[in-house]
Amino acid sequence: MTVSPALMRRIAEAAAEQTLPRFRQPVLIDNKVDGGFDPVTEADREAEKAIRALIGEAYPDHGILGEEFGLEGEASDHRWIIDPIDGTRAFISGLPLWGTLVGLTVSGRAVAGMMSQPFTGELFYTVGEGAHYEGPGGARSLKTRDTTELADATLCTTTPALFDALRRPAYDRVEKSVCLARYGTDCYAYAMLAAGQIDLVVETALQPYDIVALVPIIEQAGGVITNWAGGRPESGGDIVAAATPQLHEKAMALLR
Amino acid sequence: MTVSPALMRRIAEAAAEQTLPRFRQPVLIDNKVDGGFDPVTEADREAEKAIRALIGEAYPDHGILGEEFGLEGEASDHRWIIDPIDGTRAFISGLPLWGTLVGLTVSGRAVAGMMSQPFTGELFYTVGEGAHYEGPGGARSLKTRDTTELADATLCTTTPALFDALRRPAYDRVEKSVCLARYGTDCYAYAMLAAGQIDLVVETALQPYDIVALVPIIEQAGGVITNWAGGRPESGGDIVAAATPQLHEKAMALLR
Repeated sequence: MTVSPALMRRIAEAAAEQTLPRFRQPVLIDNKVDGGFDPVTEADREAEKAIRALIGEAYPDHGILGEEFGLEGEASDHRWIIDPIDGTRAFISGLPLWGTLVGLTVSGRAVAGMMSQPFTGELFYTVGEGAHYEGPGGARSLKTRDTTELADATLCTTTPALFDALRRPAYDRVEKSVCLARYGTDCYAYAMLAAGQIDLVVETALQPYDIVALVPIIEQAGGVITNWAGGRPESGGDIVAAATPQLHEKAMALLR
Repeated sequence: MTVSPALMRRIAEAAAEQTLPRFRQPVLIDNKVDGGFDPVTEADREAEKAIRALIGEAYPDHGILGEEFGLEGEASDHRWIIDPIDGTRAFISGLPLWGTLVGLTVSGRAVAGMMSQPFTGELFYTVGEGAHYEGPGGARSLKTRDTTELADATLCTTTPALFDALRRPAYDRVEKSVCLARYGTDCYAYAMLAAGQIDLVVETALQPYDIVALVPIIEQAGGVITNWAGGRPESGGDIVAAATPQLHEKAMALLR
């Protein structure tokens, strides 16, 4: 099976209809976890409903796992993974670095995916043959850059505070080795990696819906993305994504 | 004298003509400081030239201080302060959180200013009567929100790593007291403060050109911005900006 670019665009548009009118507006924020600060907005829920409806219409036999409404169609080996708003904290702070993530796994392997940022009007996607950008500046292919040395690399992570005591020294070793580190990037970092703007993303404690959509975009753009043990990244957890195999290996050596 | 909104728009457009075509393109990066990573792009220099030309045409007697080309017209009590690209690191990482900053001081006090982000098409400005937004979602007035408690506040800073050993504990006290902290925001944080999306910005080691343009926008939007000693912020250095006087006072108490 092949997913059409048109479906990716329709999903991005349907999600944008729910998220964009609520961006930079006062919104109802629930607390998902008692005592924690894990906002869920109305936008999150409504966007996931809209995305599920489109996928269900196109592929009624496929499974769907979403951040907000869990898993349906568990038996299917085709499973769509949805994060309607990745970067909720950026969203509620008015910062246009959040995105809508939708990926497709077949037998657990990510084969297609999209990240859309409706405020900037950007769509990054792959349906399995190359990775593509549509948005300001015009449509083009995505290609990671050819950085092979940590000393030349720009690194992104959402915040170093997310690394626990065991992982923080490993992360710090990488940050100390690179040319430039940027924080606060959420899914946007992976899009910029695929676009050849940055070179490395190191993160921890990711859920599958945080990463599955981004995996095939990075791979089709020429990058390498694995967990810190070098295994497939679809399950989330500790993730390292790099512009080249050489840079990935050098980051891995410091993370181990 | 009164600056016209039309001049602010012309400045934003002239700068965008120089910055935007170079955003997300390979650009020549010089090192300003030996051994440091302080990139200066062609975009920075060309944008400052374009802005200086427009100001010089409108106000030939005014002084101009820019990040790239220094001070001219030192004798005038009217001085324009320019940072063609605030957030150069965001710029070279492909992240749309950089901005063009242009402010006007009269006898050292900021009275008008603008921040433009051409990739998102946003302009935040004041010419002395209210603060205004033009961009996606339509034109509107800027108004800080009514947060008075640190526990309810969202804080932004570019990165905690910028605070030196003396100031870091003070910053950390504020960060530990707030609801949410976001990093990597540069000038965009001040725009979001004026827009009522976040509540607090705490930064250090700022230059006048990093902050002068933003001061009157925040003040006209209802916020309070000073240095950590409570004095006028136009000289830069350690800055605290807050949505309300009450919140500003509570942050100041922790920074002292």
